[in-house]
Amino acid sequence: MYSLTVRDHVMVAHSLPRPAFGPAQGLHGATFVAELTVRARELGENATVLDIGVLSGLLGEVLDGLRYRNLDEHPAFEGKLTTTEALARHIAEAVADRLEPGARDRLVGVAVVLRETPDAWASYSLDLP
Amino acid sequence: MYSLTVRDHVMVAHSLPRPAFGPAQGLHGATFVAELTVRARELGENATVLDIGVLSGLLGEVLDGLRYRNLDEHPAFEGKLTTTEALARHIAEAVADRLEPGARDRLVGVAVVLRETPDAWASYSLDLP
Amino acid sequence: MYSLTVRDHVMVAHSLPRPAFGPAQGLHGATFVAELTVRARELGENATVLDIGVLSGLLGEVLDGLRYRNLDEHPAFEGKLTTTEALARHIAEAVADRLEPGARDRLVGVAVVLRETPDAWASYSLDLP
Amino acid sequence: MYSLTVRDHVMVAHSLPRPAFGPAQGLHGATFVAELTVRARELGENATVLDIGVLSGLLGEVLDGLRYRNLDEHPAFEGKLTTTEALARHIAEAVADRLEPGARDRLVGVAVVLRETPDAWASYSLDLP
Amino acid sequence: MYSLTVRDHVMVAHSLPRPAFGPAQGLHGATFVAELTVRARELGENATVLDIGVLSGLLGEVLDGLRYRNLDEHPAFEGKLTTTEALARHIAEAVADRLEPGARDRLVGVAVVLRETPDAWASYSLDLP
Amino acid sequence: MYSLTVRDHVMVAHSLPRPAFGPAQGLHGATFVAELTVRARELGENATVLDIGVLSGLLGEVLDGLRYRNLDEHPAFEGKLTTTEALARHIAEAVADRLEPGARDRLVGVAVVLRETPDAWASYSLDLP
Repeated sequence: MYSLTVRDHVMVAHSLPRPAFGPAQGLHGATFVAELTVRARELGENATVLDIGVLSGLLGEVLDGLRYRNLDEHPAFEGKLTTTEALARHIAEAVADRLEPGARDRLVGVAVVLRETPDAWASYSLDLP
Repeated sequence: MYSLTVRDHVMVAHSLPRPAFGPAQGLHGATFVAELTVRARELGENATVLDIGVLSGLLGEVLDGLRYRNLDEHPAFEGKLTTTEALARHIAEAVADRLEPGARDRLVGVAVVLRETPDAWASYSLDLP
Repeated sequence: MYSLTVRDHVMVAHSLPRPAFGPAQGLHGATFVAELTVRARELGENATVLDIGVLSGLLGEVLDGLRYRNLDEHPAFEGKLTTTEALARHIAEAVADRLEPGARDRLVGVAVVLRETPDAWASYSLDLP
Repeated sequence: MYSLTVRDHVMVAHSLPRPAFGPAQGLHGATFVAELTVRARELGENATVLDIGVLSGLLGEVLDGLRYRNLDEHPAFEGKLTTTEALARHIAEAVADRLEPGARDRLVGVAVVLRETPDAWASYSLDLP
Repeated sequence: MYSLTVRDHVMVAHSLPRPAFGPAQGLHGATFVAELTVRARELGENATVLDIGVLSGLLGEVLDGLRYRNLDEHPAFEGKLTTTEALARHIAEAVADRLEPGARDRLVGVAVVLRETPDAWASYSLDLP
Repeated sequence: MYSLTVRDHVMVAHSLPRPAFGPAQGLHGATFVAELTVRARELGENATVLDIGVLSGLLGEVLDGLRYRNLDEHPAFEGKLTTTEALARHIAEAVADRLEPGARDRLVGVAVVLRETPDAWASYSLDLP
């Protein structure tokens, strides 16, 4: 199995308005460093899982929708908790949706690791049918 | 599949008294940086795999049992080799044992990566039944 | 010359309301990773620049004043831009103010590096008279 | 499941002579940081997946075949594209080939992560029969 | 004193044709990760040492002159050894030359750290008159 | 000003037998990651501050004296506290003593950063006369 990973980041504000989140209930923020991985059993004609520029571009496009935003007022997350886990899933699914048919056929999975501090991170991975 | 990871570290002394370990047979030490990961297919009611504070607390409790200790004299490792692999398993199992029933039901796995130098690390992962 | 550094982090929201900041004018956020360094020409009686626990405690206290806050509504920054540079100075000065007389006499400088993304960071250093 | 990972690096020149690679078609180079992981269900008699020195030695031997080389003129890659994915596979297979029978029997997989920049990396993993 | 640092990288080929360089005499390559720091005693009107976007842009422009190149055939280095130290100086001076008069007046220094492997890096720093 | 840095590490046991060190009074250990930096105003004939291999060799030699040792029984530290600060000085001075006259004349300083955990490190720097 092969994989290719690209990394980028976004800086957002949000709150986690549930008592369970303690001090993180208030409006605060994060630099989320995103590592996007795609997996394939075989390489494409250029001996790559995917073109790095294409994959970076996809991640950048998806993160542009979050960049410098207050997620509490972001339509994609209305009524939803923007935990690191939920954001990792949002990014992974948005990338999967943007994959071109040719690439999607060859890929078997998409995963996003989202680092919120040096000491904590979450991930979401999905298998491509 | 979702995952959540927290990181902490301990500083311990130990020896590896077998000829195969060469210079590491003598009493020396290590800063072990532990990355504890738990995995779940679905998120809990707060859109998390587990509360980060709870998971950090579990890792801290388990590492407190090792912190600033000479593992050669630690009852948990009597007659055992405290290799990085063995310590990773010790930590992963101790965390799994401490999981509350509610959390344990939803989680499907626990894994520990234990970094001993910038150039070497080991891991142990277990599936939760 | 000796130095001792401790590291911690905070997650805050803020905006930078000047046209020069482009998309960062809106409310967003950051994980700021702070590296606090103190310098001394000679070591103290315990062969340290300062006790690590004491220095970590000082940094933690100062960061607690920022942790999970919206800096746009924080009294310490009323009418001020909370750029990374300005925050680095705020932290360095707050630590310097909290140093006990004994430590302050031996130290010759305090510096804070504040990392906002993997690709950008700022610092502020001050000499202790 | 246990794993053990060792890390090393090589500095090589190469080109990627296909229009899809844009500016990387010309002769350029890279520092590839290689993380070699081996996995085992049970530990060996010394409570390790494999001896760290042995595993580092294997990785070093394989990387020595690439170190300070122009891969465009390297016989192992004649007529082949030396993408990060292809190099990861080359290293993983070369390590697997060098495993001694005793170790190979116990191991269930070999994987190589190859980092080319702080923002991009690829991997190849193989199951040992 | 304040500082601001931005980070970027380039992938280049080169050789170091002197016997002292041993195996690095042959054509090989490197991923150079560049950390560009500018220093100022006072902040500008936006409470920054310099705009991060401007500084990243300057570093990017200078690195674009090296990106995916074979430095052995680069006119800027004809007859010169492209050691990490020499490249750090090349980048620092090229950035200093591109600083706008307004910024240059306020800045007191420019420095470049150039990382060639996880285990080796060089730097060049210059004071601005 | 130019600098060159090389990195290596050692794993040692030690204790810090003073009440001020709290739990670190007991025998424990550390992985110390050492970054050795030498500085020069001008480069040598090969356009380097010093040969990387030579500098790595010097650091390796000095660290070999500590590697896999219990510092409590090490003759160099008899009656001394082996704090991170003290060890940084020990390494910097031992490297300075080993510099060949030719190199020593051109160098203006030697510094060692010693990292004991991801969250704490110390340094010692000396000017060469």
